[in-house]
Order: sequence, then structure tokens, then C-alpha cells
Amino acid sequence: MDGEMARLWEEIHEQPDVIRKLWNELPLRLEQRPAEGKDIFLFGTGASLSACMQAKFAFLKYRGVHGAAVAAFEAEYYKEILGRGSMAAVVSQSGESYETKVIVNGLLEKGIPFWGITNNEDSFLGKNARCCLPLMAGEELGTATKTQTASVMALYMMAAIGHEGAMRQLEKLPEAMEATLQASEGYKQELADFLSDRKAIYLTGLDAHAPTALQASLMLKEKVWLHAEGLSLAEFRHGPVEVVEEGIPIVLIGYGKEKIDTLLMHADFLTKVCHGDVVLVTNCQENRIKGYRNFPYIWEGDEALSHICATLPFQLLAARMAAQRGYDIDGFKYIGKVLNQYEKPIK
Amino acid sequence: MDGEMARLWEEIHEQPDVIRKLWNELPLRLEQRPAEGKDIFLFGTGASLSACMQAKFAFLKYRGVHGAAVAAFEAEYYKEILGRGSMAAVVSQSGESYETKVIVNGLLEKGIPFWGITNNEDSFLGKNARCCLPLMAGEELGTATKTQTASVMALYMMAAIGHEGAMRQLEKLPEAMEATLQASEGYKQELADFLSDRKAIYLTGLDAHAPTALQASLMLKEKVWLHAEGLSLAEFRHGPVEVVEEGIPIVLIGYGKEKIDTLLMHADFLTKVCHGDVVLVTNCQENRIKGYRNFPYIWEGDEALSHICATLPFQLLAARMAAQRGYDIDGFKYIGKVLNQYEKPIK
Repeated sequence: MDGEMARLWEEIHEQPDVIRKLWNELPLRLEQRPAEGKDIFLFGTGASLSACMQAKFAFLKYRGVHGAAVAAFEAEYYKEILGRGSMAAVVSQSGESYETKVIVNGLLEKGIPFWGITNNEDSFLGKNARCCLPLMAGEELGTATKTQTASVMALYMMAAIGHEGAMRQLEKLPEAMEATLQASEGYKQELADFLSDRKAIYLTGLDAHAPTALQASLMLKEKVWLHAEGLSLAEFRHGPVEVVEEGIPIVLIGYGKEKIDTLLMHADFLTKVCHGDVVLVTNCQENRIKGYRNFPYIWEGDEALSHICATLPFQLLAARMAAQRGYDIDGFKYIGKVLNQYEKPIK
Repeated sequence: MDGEMARLWEEIHEQPDVIRKLWNELPLRLEQRPAEGKDIFLFGTGASLSACMQAKFAFLKYRGVHGAAVAAFEAEYYKEILGRGSMAAVVSQSGESYETKVIVNGLLEKGIPFWGITNNEDSFLGKNARCCLPLMAGEELGTATKTQTASVMALYMMAAIGHEGAMRQLEKLPEAMEATLQASEGYKQELADFLSDRKAIYLTGLDAHAPTALQASLMLKEKVWLHAEGLSLAEFRHGPVEVVEEGIPIVLIGYGKEKIDTLLMHADFLTKVCHGDVVLVTNCQENRIKGYRNFPYIWEGDEALSHICATLPFQLLAARMAAQRGYDIDGFKYIGKVLNQYEKPIK
């Protein structure tokens, strides 16, 4: 199947409209925003956990609260401390996964109200949440792109509501996404070629973009079956950097406008000392920065709200590379079986 | 150099004595334990961050507080919310790394007292902490093993102090470590052979052992330059599982005694559906469990205190594999340069 005929391809391009709809219709009322000063646990799994990790910077910046991203599988340990002055939100595409049910049951047992952020209001999560924020992403057949993006947006909105500057930025997000998708069209093949035939790939994110690197690596593992590891740039140089040798590609993802010098310091070290093969993905608009190839996303606002646009090029990249390798872009090898056979039934 | 002549090898075997010394001498007094009900931010980088992630389960279980493991590079975003009802601890081997200085300066600026957990009491961290818990690990020339283990122990003690059951378990930890090292001797070559010549390796941890998988992967990347990714078993099946094909080795790390059925459910799925090559590392003492090879660590206590023993086999494995490949076990390709040239000077 040609990549651009795939359902995944369409879904990637539907995202600006999903975000526009969320912005216009998400019934985010006063009682649906986290209370001042109360920290909030954000539970998720897989792409939903990446969303929680990406959005936590907006909670820190605009609400001044710890939006702690917690893997839903840790529910067993967290159940005991929930509710004590903190709030909770559970993010799940289907609202029905095993991990989602465990954490929802834990919250219900203790009588703790929580937000449910899900694509399915009629799901276990949607029905049991005190307040359900529907993602309105529509049916998603391919791997999670629309719902991942919509989850980040719903969380951004929870964090930004009441903060005028942040809300003004979010209103412009759909346009920035369209511009990013258009810009990515121009270089997606070049980026795919750059990563093709490598034995392993490291995606590293500067500061708030560590979870963008994680989500990008998840897409490449899921769709292209690549050994792509995503982590923070700071963590990368405290150990993993030892794996770098000639030909190891390292993608540096960052909010480049203000932090370009830091990014370039890392790029220089990885190139000159470690002989890695570095490219940048930043919101600087040049195609080359100090000799490095830069694959730009479009975002004029704060770093804390830059994840959605920064993630889009990797969605196109994953779809492109899967098409190039002749994989069934909309199919899964195992994930369908994980969901159908492998989840324990919990009511 | 023969692996067993390396300094790293000696340092691995010095660990039970380091832990015994910490148990006997760490001056953990009443004022040095986190206050009841106050959450605590645990900041670290690299192996120190793994330590924070491993120990957080003890804070959740024995103190009923959120011991939130936070990557030190996130300091910029966390600075604003620190101190508001929460406490802080900073973990750093040298007490001098760039990230450590950023977070310490942030805490000092806001007048927030914090614990410093470091091997060097005279370091920037040690001198500025309200209370310094010295790791007493002695000089460490190889990659972090002693300090990583000692950091986990210091955090365990902070979490367990006042909890009799947990303290009784910690007292027995050095013996369990000695027994684990001895048991691992018997199979380290078999485990090294199992992983040798693979193009990529996945280390996955069940529940509280996600950070053990992360730390194990860090050792293998640092010492053996292997593309070894460590993550939670739950996260692995929500996406990354798609990379599995015949011959991909997956190491399942867990607290097997109570959770063996869950581990085996995962092992069966990964083997039968995905055709992965699975081995277990658990505290069950059988060499084979339902047909799976099991490389056991020795630990009779709670899962929340099982990380140190579960990590030891991977230290021996990394040293063994590095020796087998003829690498300079006590040297680094780049990390020395990271530390010497690449850290920004901050006072």
C-alpha cells in the first residue's frame, strides 16, 4: 500500500481539525479545571502516558502545580496516597484497557473524584469519571496519532484555562499544526532516507522534549519496527552516549528558538567527540543551522505548549518509512492481540 | 583485561560491605527523615535517577508519601513549585554535575532546605544541603555500581525509618546481596551467552522493576555498547512489542514470588504470539519455571525493597560481556569527556 493512501496518513492530516473542534467545543467549565495549588496525578499508558509527560510542563508553568505523569501500571503503589490533597486525571484512548480499569477502580474504592480523558465517553473510564473530557478524535484505525494529540490538547487546556497568554497561544495551534504538516511534507523523505538502514536510532529531547522523543520512538517502533530509543538529551549523555559510534544517528529534538545554543553544544559534542550522525528537529525555520540539517516544526509560542507541533514530523516519518518498507501501515503485528486476548477482564 | 581482574569487578563485590557500613553508620536521625504526609521530590540524573525511581516505591509503601522521582534536567520547570508543602532530596555521586548544580541553586534561591545524598560530602551538593547523607561508597573508578546501590539504600532508609518491618528487612540486605552475587556467579556466563551477538535487547520490568530494567539497560549500554532498552513490561506491550521477531531477546525482571503468574502470562505472550526469546530474572529460586530459564536473585523481603538484589546480576553481566568482547572495562569512551569538557561551570 502506498503510504499516502493509508488510513494512518489521513488520520495524521485530520489532526488540526480535531484540535480546532476540541478548542471550540470541549466543555471546559470552571469546575473542570484543577483547583489552584492542588497537584494533579496524570495517569496513562503508552501514547497516553507520553501525552501526560508532554503536558506536565504546562501544568508546572501555567497552574504552578505538579502535574505528575504516572504510569497507570503503578496504580497498586499509588492507590494508597491518592486523594490526599491531590487530584487525579486518567487518560486512555479506549477507556477500557486493563491498566485504566485498575486505576479507575482504585480511585472509585477510595471515593476520589477524577477526570476521565478519553475518546469514548461510554467507556468504563468515561462512565465512572466525575467529569469526562471527550477527545472527539473520531474513529482511529491506525496507530494513535489523533488521540495522542487530542490528549495533549485536552491536558494543555486544563492547565491553561484562566491563563490568557496560554489560551491565546492554544487558539492558534491548529494553524501551526497545518503549517507544520505542510513544512514536513517537504522533508519527510529526506528524514526517512537519513534513518533508513540504520541498526539503531536514538531520539533525544532537550528539556521539555524528552517525552516528545519517547513518543517519536514509540511511533517508529510500532510502525517501522525500528530499534529506536527515545530519551532526554541530559540522560543520554550520562551513560547511553557510550553506544555512539560512526553511523549511529541521533535526532536532537528541541524548542530551538531560545535554546539553540544549548542544542548546538550537544550536537557538536555528539558529532565531533563521538562521531555520531546528528540531525535537528526544532522550531527554528532554517534548513541548516551551523552546518546541521534541521527539520523544522512551526511553533511561535512557549516551549511548554510546543509538543504537538514537534511530534507531527515523526508521525509523517513513521508512516513514510513504513510505506517505503512495504509494511501494512494500518495493521498491527501483535497489538490487536494484546488488546483482545491479553487484557484481564475487570469490570 | 580479564573481566574478573577489573576494578569494576572488585567494586561490584564491595557492595555488600558498603551497604553494611551504611546500615551501621549512616547518621539517620529523627530530623533526617521526611515529615509525615509531606511528599518529597527526589532529583537525580543517570544512575542516580534510576536510584530515585527504584526507591520511590518504598516511600509510597512505608511512608505513604509520593517520593516523586524527577530528572534533574527538569529543574527549570520544577523550581517554581518547590517548597510548597513538599520536601526535596538531590542524589548525585559527585555532587558536582551540571544538573545537580542547577537544581541545588534553584533550591537555595528559594530558601528551601533539602537533603543531599552524595558520595562526596565536600562537594557543591554536600556543602549546600541542609542535611547531607554520605554514601560512604569510597572511590569508584568503574561505572556506577557501588554508588548506585548505596543511593538506593540511603533512600530506602529514609523511607523505612520508623517502620519496623521494613527496617528488619534492610538489616538483612547485605547477606542477601552476598547470596545474590554468589548465585549470579553460577549463571553469569550463561546469561552473557544468551545476550551475545543480538542486534538489540529489551529489558522489561514488571511493576516496581521498571526502573531496574532501566538501570540494567544503562549498564549494558555503558559497558557493552549494546542497544539495550529498558522499560516497564506494561509499557512494552503498548507499542514497543511490535519490534519483536524471532531472535529478539526479552529479559523479564520481576519480583516473582507473588507475581509469578503475571510474569508468566507476559512470558507466554511474548514467546508464543511474538516468537521472542524470553528469559526471567526473578527472586524465585528455580532455574527453570514452566520451561523458562530463570536467573534468580536472592530476596525474601518486600517487592518495594527488592531493587538492589535484582540489579546485581546485571552488573556482573555487563562486566562479563565487556570482558568477553575485549573492551576496557574500567574505561569510558566519552563519559570522561562529558564530565570534563562538557559541563557548564556553575558555582
